[in-house]
Amino acid sequence: MAVGVHILADLYGVDSKILSHIRPMKALLDDTIKHAKLTKLSSDYYQFKPFGVSGVVFLAESHISIHTWPEYGLLTLDIYTCGAPESADEAFKYIVHRLKPKAIDYRRIERGKNAPYQEADIALPVQAQKPLGINTATGFSP
Amino acid sequence: MAVGVHILADLYGVDSKILSHIRPMKALLDDTIKHAKLTKLSSDYYQFKPFGVSGVVFLAESHISIHTWPEYGLLTLDIYTCGAPESADEAFKYIVHRLKPKAIDYRRIERGKNAPYQEADIALPVQAQKPLGINTATGFSP
Repeated sequence: MAVGVHILADLYGVDSKILSHIRPMKALLDDTIKHAKLTKLSSDYYQFKPFGVSGVVFLAESHISIHTWPEYGLLTLDIYTCGAPESADEAFKYIVHRLKPKAIDYRRIERGKNAPYQEADIALPVQAQKPLGINTATGFSP
Repeated sequence: MAVGVHILADLYGVDSKILSHIRPMKALLDDTIKHAKLTKLSSDYYQFKPFGVSGVVFLAESHISIHTWPEYGLLTLDIYTCGAPESADEAFKYIVHRLKPKAIDYRRIERGKNAPYQEADIALPVQAQKPLGINTATGFSP
């Protein structure tokens, strides 16, 4: 089983005016949460100077976070839900629909997929590894 | 280039007493931020009943987020920094040192690695895909 679905997406070629300040980004996330029927607990945004926004929305179902680089037309987006997986997909599609990026670097990852943990299921210990974008279930020796 | 490094780790076999309530988790993250010389802007935590914690720390360098499932001994951890990549690694190692998980599902991903976006670098459009844990630079048609 997995406890949640995590969509990581880097959206390129987005209108930098939308990405520059809190107001349009907050409006986008509020609309997204409503559209995807997610449950907002709280949210927090930070305005970088002269432009750029970080934002996190706490959900009963986990979180959505954004970081923008208007100078690159870039939004990095994380949608992590431990409710219905379709909610994450709906939220993602809605944001893409609104922002119309020219390209997307997209991943969809299951979180906590070895829960409940059973020692026999995972070989231990192994050396520390730094896999890049590869799903690994490893022991880690810092 | 990339704008940041994102470590995603699911830690299994963690003492459920640590994972159950805000206080020890907040202490852990505050210590981690100090140890890794990161810059905290704000933080927010949510206590689930009867146990379980969600938390996000905003950093000048991006964010750290946690979600716990004490009933599984599970912590899902995200450390996303757009500062020195070593900071993310330091923070991760410190958390592992403190929590001593029995197993870790670990990924380390570069975010915004196609920034600044150049249309010629990425083929468009392609069909929507749902790759699982595979690094893709794709156009997406919702």
